[in-house]
Amino acid sequence: MSNGSATATHLTATEAATAARRASRPLATASLEARNKALAFIAAGLRERVSEILEANVADLESERAVGLTDALRDRLTLTGERVEAMAQGVEAVISLDDPVGEELEHRTIASGLDLRKVRVPLGVVAVIYEARPNVTVDCAALCIKSGNAIVLRGSSYAVNSNEALAAVVRDGIEKAGLPGDAVQVLNGSREELAELATLDGLIDLIIPRGGEGLKAVLKEVATVPVMYAASGNCHVYVDSDADLDMAREIIVNAKTSRPGVCNAAETLLVHEDVAAEFLAKALPELADAGVELVGDERTRQLAPEGVTVGEATADDWNNEFLALKLAVGVVDSVEDAIEHVNEHGSGHSEAIVTGSPDTTGQLFANSLDSAAVYINASTRFTDGFEFGMGAEIGISTQKLHARGPIGLRELTTTKYILLGEGQIRR
Amino acid sequence: MSNGSATATHLTATEAATAARRASRPLATASLEARNKALAFIAAGLRERVSEILEANVADLESERAVGLTDALRDRLTLTGERVEAMAQGVEAVISLDDPVGEELEHRTIASGLDLRKVRVPLGVVAVIYEARPNVTVDCAALCIKSGNAIVLRGSSYAVNSNEALAAVVRDGIEKAGLPGDAVQVLNGSREELAELATLDGLIDLIIPRGGEGLKAVLKEVATVPVMYAASGNCHVYVDSDADLDMAREIIVNAKTSRPGVCNAAETLLVHEDVAAEFLAKALPELADAGVELVGDERTRQLAPEGVTVGEATADDWNNEFLALKLAVGVVDSVEDAIEHVNEHGSGHSEAIVTGSPDTTGQLFANSLDSAAVYINASTRFTDGFEFGMGAEIGISTQKLHARGPIGLRELTTTKYILLGEGQIRR
Repeated sequence: MSNGSATATHLTATEAATAARRASRPLATASLEARNKALAFIAAGLRERVSEILEANVADLESERAVGLTDALRDRLTLTGERVEAMAQGVEAVISLDDPVGEELEHRTIASGLDLRKVRVPLGVVAVIYEARPNVTVDCAALCIKSGNAIVLRGSSYAVNSNEALAAVVRDGIEKAGLPGDAVQVLNGSREELAELATLDGLIDLIIPRGGEGLKAVLKEVATVPVMYAASGNCHVYVDSDADLDMAREIIVNAKTSRPGVCNAAETLLVHEDVAAEFLAKALPELADAGVELVGDERTRQLAPEGVTVGEATADDWNNEFLALKLAVGVVDSVEDAIEHVNEHGSGHSEAIVTGSPDTTGQLFANSLDSAAVYINASTRFTDGFEFGMGAEIGISTQKLHARGPIGLRELTTTKYILLGEGQIRR
Repeated sequence: MSNGSATATHLTATEAATAARRASRPLATASLEARNKALAFIAAGLRERVSEILEANVADLESERAVGLTDALRDRLTLTGERVEAMAQGVEAVISLDDPVGEELEHRTIASGLDLRKVRVPLGVVAVIYEARPNVTVDCAALCIKSGNAIVLRGSSYAVNSNEALAAVVRDGIEKAGLPGDAVQVLNGSREELAELATLDGLIDLIIPRGGEGLKAVLKEVATVPVMYAASGNCHVYVDSDADLDMAREIIVNAKTSRPGVCNAAETLLVHEDVAAEFLAKALPELADAGVELVGDERTRQLAPEGVTVGEATADDWNNEFLALKLAVGVVDSVEDAIEHVNEHGSGHSEAIVTGSPDTTGQLFANSLDSAAVYINASTRFTDGFEFGMGAEIGISTQKLHARGPIGLRELTTTKYILLGEGQIRR
């Protein structure tokens, strides 16, 4: 870490946020060309300085504290030449995304004759709190730079050397483009920092936590700065009475098993009673073969074909995000029952209906659910910034305010009214 | 209060919010016709039952506690036939506003072939906390019904009889339209209710406080439900070196004196040094004649014409919203200095520049300020939902998340992604 830019890591949260705030002003009015140039310099810098980055990463991996990490956590923390190249490509992909800054949302003449424009502007300073995944440092910095925001990165203390090395490259890239390198700040990852960061009203405009329920609980307790929480994804698939049952089977198997550890994976399957016997006879064995642990309500357990074990679903099973190969299965009397179940037990993330009546029952299901994304005849697994054509995302929001669903470039902006007059005063 | 609907006032905050939550579901999918019908029934009910409403209002005004109120507060609490008629007309005006629900914000086919639509949907349950102004009860209920939201109204205990009577009319109107009257709940106004209301995650989606700094401080301390704060309006008018000085004089006099107690009134005047002598010689006497108390920096005080007293501005004077006939006046070296002053001292509400170069200096000023609304050659007093053509507003937000500026019907919605497929699964 010979690079001077990395000294930011020795700042307190307040000092870092103050520096980021100062840097956010020129960044907010920087041209698209300058912001994209910074991203190009960052991508080039990552490639040029890969050995420096990997050296820092080795220091993290070989530190005494890191020895106790599980294999999965060590893997997340580990950087390779290939992974650094993937980061560089990720930064280049952000260059090609549309500029959200200055986008005109409204333009009209109001009664007083004033010319009113509502335009997108950067939020200012965004703080991201994340675990020991160094690639997040670069991904989030790239999205913030593109959207004209300064960023305070509070990663894990396990990844501090990697994060410092990556941030040094990012800051140098920004400065080569003539913009303030202070726009990107990396913190050390200490516990005290978190509470300090969460109360920096006026310096931090938004906190995005990318961690588990524990982090969220801590922030709920102390934060006075706005936080965009990503709630857990207790996602549902409902199979309607006139569904194409082969389609339904493919969808639930995909939604449950293609990547069970992510938030858009399905956790509950609901089936209309008219097709429950036929559907469950085929679907349950296929799910069990894929290694899925099944729990269900009374009717499901009675319909389970021989050789397939379906445990008794507890009250918690309907409310939980398993994040594992486990599925709760229930039989319902009607689409209305399914809607009520999802609104009562769901977390408002993503839900799917499989139906032969997409225009009627499908729309009813979509309109009646209080969720960020509702699918008619498709897997819940598509809730994702890339899949939605938004480019990269910084997280997925299940809040209802500001951003709901994937948080991409647009969601990192606010709006401003600009009104042009000829001396109008209000009578 | 013979009407049964008014029994809602005896519920706790939790009970009221639970009932509102239940009612919010059918309201969220109610047709525009049904919602508008409810509003029409409410307007008619207000006219028919005016004597019942005024009787309840007299009970509030004659209560022992209300005797101690100032004249201004008593006036706010007082209803008359004319004022009830104005409420009815306000409700009718909401009928004619565009429906925000179902508005399509995006519609495209994404890479997987899914048809993606991003549509506006109601937030769910909105809580409004306000002072002893019974008209707010009806105004806010009308906006929430129109936008498909249930509402919990927590007014002042001073106005409890008036609020109950008004809510009874509102609930009857909703029920006549075939929608659930429980969508409108009125609380008693006790202190305990506030903390209870502010922590009802999952039952309340948004709290909008329409009160002073004290209320905001209490909510900051306890709220876990999202709150949309309306910060104070420390608004600025900057007179540029090539401004039309007559226009500038009219604008600052209007911005300061037309209604000094509102949040979009100007609190600070900044003048470019090149025109300071000429401008202040005319503007300061006019402001003083209008009864404005003037405080200023050193240069302003030296330029003040004879007979006009300009006190020494304290550090606080630059940061405060006076909400009174008082103005801080400063001379700056450049538009950049003005921008820095506003970004440092402002509250992010509304600012104005008066300039002969609207396309260059004016745009620089507008782009560089971190405020909800920036005016070029017009008074700050236009920041208002009606003036912006949004119809009524429920408040003005100076937050950057979700809504910034007037909070109208659209700002009472969130969005939902609805995706239509043909069995797509994610590979």
